[in-house]
Amino acid sequence: MVYGAIEAGGTKFVCAISSDGQSIAERVSIATTQPEETMAQVYQFFDQFKLTAMGIGSFGPIDSNPSSAQYGQILSTPKQGWSSFDFLGAVKKRYSIPVAWTTDVNAAAYGEAKNGSAQDVEHSIYLTVGTGIGGGFVSEGVIKEGIGHAEMGHIFVAKHEGDYFDGICPFHKGCLEGLASGSAISARYQKKAQELTLNQEVWELEAFYLAQAVYNYSLLHRPERIILGGGVMKQKQLYHLIQAQVDKLNQTYISLPDLASYVVAPALGDNAGIIGCLILAQEQIKLSN
Amino acid sequence: MVYGAIEAGGTKFVCAISSDGQSIAERVSIATTQPEETMAQVYQFFDQFKLTAMGIGSFGPIDSNPSSAQYGQILSTPKQGWSSFDFLGAVKKRYSIPVAWTTDVNAAAYGEAKNGSAQDVEHSIYLTVGTGIGGGFVSEGVIKEGIGHAEMGHIFVAKHEGDYFDGICPFHKGCLEGLASGSAISARYQKKAQELTLNQEVWELEAFYLAQAVYNYSLLHRPERIILGGGVMKQKQLYHLIQAQVDKLNQTYISLPDLASYVVAPALGDNAGIIGCLILAQEQIKLSN
Repeated sequence: MVYGAIEAGGTKFVCAISSDGQSIAERVSIATTQPEETMAQVYQFFDQFKLTAMGIGSFGPIDSNPSSAQYGQILSTPKQGWSSFDFLGAVKKRYSIPVAWTTDVNAAAYGEAKNGSAQDVEHSIYLTVGTGIGGGFVSEGVIKEGIGHAEMGHIFVAKHEGDYFDGICPFHKGCLEGLASGSAISARYQKKAQELTLNQEVWELEAFYLAQAVYNYSLLHRPERIILGGGVMKQKQLYHLIQAQVDKLNQTYISLPDLASYVVAPALGDNAGIIGCLILAQEQIKLSN
Repeated sequence: MVYGAIEAGGTKFVCAISSDGQSIAERVSIATTQPEETMAQVYQFFDQFKLTAMGIGSFGPIDSNPSSAQYGQILSTPKQGWSSFDFLGAVKKRYSIPVAWTTDVNAAAYGEAKNGSAQDVEHSIYLTVGTGIGGGFVSEGVIKEGIGHAEMGHIFVAKHEGDYFDGICPFHKGCLEGLASGSAISARYQKKAQELTLNQEVWELEAFYLAQAVYNYSLLHRPERIILGGGVMKQKQLYHLIQAQVDKLNQTYISLPDLASYVVAPALGDNAGIIGCLILAQEQIKLSN
């Protein structure tokens, strides 16, 4: 068996191969430019192998509803050339194998649920806090969606008293992503997150926003674990700050798991997405039979 | 067949009987006082019938996790005498029949999903905006919960510019319930909602908060319909105001159903909860076999 995985991000595509769906035998990273150019390199990599199945976790928004006419496409995106690109269709046509299709963050949520920080629980959320913010919810072994995939990063939360930053989300201005993504941090302080590590106020404010998101998800989904990954979460001090803020927000309202084991880092680290794609590839074989 | 239903609210218990699980043959309303006194009247009503099964939709928080030791109990509540009351246990002991157990708002969400405004869709939310705010999510015919039931009314949302009201939630102060419940309206304006009908500003602000909640639920659950019920929603002007605000919040970000058929009133009106309990009672028979 040879499983292929594509973690398609806005800046780079990671392609990987595995024979067991868990350990990565070979991988390559490709810059995200135009679909034609990027996909040519994707094919060049995978053409070397005799693939059994493939899993794709793509940047969104995507059409993930199998009963929709646009199923498999990337939807309207500011990323030039990619709107309406039939990603799933293109890969299926090239390789004629079972191909799983979901968002990059759903794939990461699935990887962590099956093989990472949430493998011992039934209900878990993975949130990536990077250039943007996005997440997925896995319940009883299934990625949960409604008529489309979740957009966890764009919820509205309360502004911190005295925070006059308007937010940078092109759609919502001051939604969570607009206030607390890596891009928001850079815009707010005119410095990158890495240059702000020692500035306690930066991380207190960041934790204030992320804790509200974690708490809102907690109230709505009642998960057993919330995994926070992505570039901004390399600032390890954030975990403790967020745990403390969630505790403060909740008071004694709902019964939350012990916070130190509730808000945690991804066990698979930066591989959560690609591992999730490999597991989805494996499972797609059964679904396609 | 005789199905019984208890919609147990904080101010009153509604008990009903139905032979088909849809039309109510007889009903009674009982003031919520102490458990012993209230339950005596509940039994007095149901003792008249030979019950086949029962459904209970109770005010929360409740333990709804069948694998928990407290399953069937009302959890810590400010309502005197009811904390740790084994509601499900008491009813089962009295009647030795199959008894379904969920929250009042989950029952209403289920009623609307099976027999009301959401019977034509797969994913729907019911939110009641009354003295408090609470809701339930039904997906593919099942009430969705994690390790506990949702607490949709207590999410944090952005404050309106210039709104200096702190909120009245005893746990979270300015959460949605603290800012936009019927109790919050009364505290904010020192008048009841019914006396404020013609004050446009009141409903613009109310819609501002409820629209954020509707939008946050939309992003996280991606439902096909959101049903808003409860006392505050008797102000029918709110539906249009909320629809307009949701449209404004979303811009073109996610594809939402047509808003006039997305944010709607409960088809079952004030009977959503009790009908939901009756349907759950019917289905409990199969589950208990």
